[in-house]
Amino acid sequence: MGNVTIRILARQLQLSAATVSKALADSHEISGPTKKRVLEMAAALNYTPNPYASSLRRKKSKTIAVILPEVADSFFSQAINGIEAIAQDKGYHVLVCLTHERSQKEQAILHEMLGGRADGILISVTSETSDPACLLELQEKGVPVVFFDRTCDGIDTARVVTDDLQSSYKATDHLIRQGCRKIAFLAIAEGLSISHQRIEGYKQALEDGGIKFSRENIIACTHDAAENLRLLKKIMSRKDRPDGVIASVEKLAVPVYQVCRELGLNIPGDLKVIGFSNLVTAAFLQPALTTVTQPAFEMGRSAASLLFKALGNKNFSLSQQVEVIPSELQVRESTG
Amino acid sequence: MGNVTIRILARQLQLSAATVSKALADSHEISGPTKKRVLEMAAALNYTPNPYASSLRRKKSKTIAVILPEVADSFFSQAINGIEAIAQDKGYHVLVCLTHERSQKEQAILHEMLGGRADGILISVTSETSDPACLLELQEKGVPVVFFDRTCDGIDTARVVTDDLQSSYKATDHLIRQGCRKIAFLAIAEGLSISHQRIEGYKQALEDGGIKFSRENIIACTHDAAENLRLLKKIMSRKDRPDGVIASVEKLAVPVYQVCRELGLNIPGDLKVIGFSNLVTAAFLQPALTTVTQPAFEMGRSAASLLFKALGNKNFSLSQQVEVIPSELQVRESTG
Repeated sequence: MGNVTIRILARQLQLSAATVSKALADSHEISGPTKKRVLEMAAALNYTPNPYASSLRRKKSKTIAVILPEVADSFFSQAINGIEAIAQDKGYHVLVCLTHERSQKEQAILHEMLGGRADGILISVTSETSDPACLLELQEKGVPVVFFDRTCDGIDTARVVTDDLQSSYKATDHLIRQGCRKIAFLAIAEGLSISHQRIEGYKQALEDGGIKFSRENIIACTHDAAENLRLLKKIMSRKDRPDGVIASVEKLAVPVYQVCRELGLNIPGDLKVIGFSNLVTAAFLQPALTTVTQPAFEMGRSAASLLFKALGNKNFSLSQQVEVIPSELQVRESTG
Repeated sequence: MGNVTIRILARQLQLSAATVSKALADSHEISGPTKKRVLEMAAALNYTPNPYASSLRRKKSKTIAVILPEVADSFFSQAINGIEAIAQDKGYHVLVCLTHERSQKEQAILHEMLGGRADGILISVTSETSDPACLLELQEKGVPVVFFDRTCDGIDTARVVTDDLQSSYKATDHLIRQGCRKIAFLAIAEGLSISHQRIEGYKQALEDGGIKFSRENIIACTHDAAENLRLLKKIMSRKDRPDGVIASVEKLAVPVYQVCRELGLNIPGDLKVIGFSNLVTAAFLQPALTTVTQPAFEMGRSAASLLFKALGNKNFSLSQQVEVIPSELQVRESTG
């Protein structure tokens, strides 16, 4: 690898790093003329796209970094345990770095990682992340990157995900079969890979169930807990309030219980509730919460296994690797 | 500072590092003759006890490390948020390192930290930790160390804790006032600073309530969830089973609910339950769980603030600093 990186190419071409990366990978998303421009510039600057050229630098820190939005979430804390189970076996340390859903923070952390702090990266991106430039740079420096759960376009590497579309379909279908006709979908960030898939599954199930999709039933929640409570209270106070709700991330399920208690609404009588959640207390809630339980530990394990394959063998390619581990609908009282 | 460390002194003297440290600090725990031996050896080897001698090395990484047993626990995940709130302000990165309650793992992490990976350390020790040698070494290298929640003897530095004894007293006293006469105390590791304090508070409340303390009511749980379930099931199946239980750490509360459900025992009718817990779902459990809620976020904030004071001013001494932030007993249905 010369000193020319995708970032430098992108700057020269006044394109995004993602576009340059896709063009170099001959992606169908990029137009012919743009591809031509990129390839010409790459040739002119003597760019060599070799993600493992710096492999000599690798395996120095005996550390991998796990970058994720937060730990106050059962999914992420269980995924960390899966990652650590593998890392421990390999004699590696695990550094956990939290982005708190801020892409600026994420970039600062990734920038730090360029200094050689970690040999490999496992990442579940923030709800704001759209630009994979820093990740591309790490990849070019020979630091392998594996996504788990939340992924980001514009970079070709391994992804370990769950069947977000199918499990959201199943959750919605379950509510329809239980008699719901007006199902609210609580989303946190529509741009996020997992949100997109889950909304899609919701839409398809509605369509197959003969229920018209209405844009206003997608409730855009935020990361501000007080704000979410206000919003939910407003919606649940309406005359035409929903008769079913899908909390598409864990932290949105408990506020639904809270609002129902405040408003004197009965779950499941007045409102049936499903949460995407790995809460250990789900079965002991009043009423017990029906969940889409994600294979958090297994996803962490798989992502770490792929990363260590890449660290252990420079000929192992993470490119195009996708593992999909299914979630499970656990029916409990809240949808009874 | 010369090359002579407390560890080297300890080896020469065939004493533990903790004993040497205490002797140098003129602790009342160490006998006169031992103190004399230590001071003579220190003089002979030209040892200079200056924890900030290496301060030039400091503030290089713009990173602090948080070392704790696990994140699948609301206390720790909330404490991390408190720590990050301060670190963010100061422009520092936070690395979270998990020990999974293994002192061997903790030592490996601390050893890594000697390489300059972090400018300061916040730590809540494992239930196995007894030897502060690695922490003393870090301190000598000019890396300040602050304890939060779980502390370790033999090293003189700042501690941010909650009022474990008093809050355990209050919890026990509450159960007695609610009519309990046979109160089981679920403990995870009796050697741990917080366990010791909590058991002491339990004992004092029993004594003040006129109930004889019985050793067999201290239930030694482990970190093996299946093992704990078996143990609890055995105890709750006995004819003379407890009428009240205190889960002294969060992860022991949910298994009590599980066992009661399996055995058909009613909470609070057959058994009243209190958990030391920051579970966000506590109020929504069936029945709602009475908790000793710890000031997790505030403890994280305070510990980080002390650490940054030490990082910002080499004359600021962490020695003897103790902050006690009170916990709160939140009475709910499970003790009704």
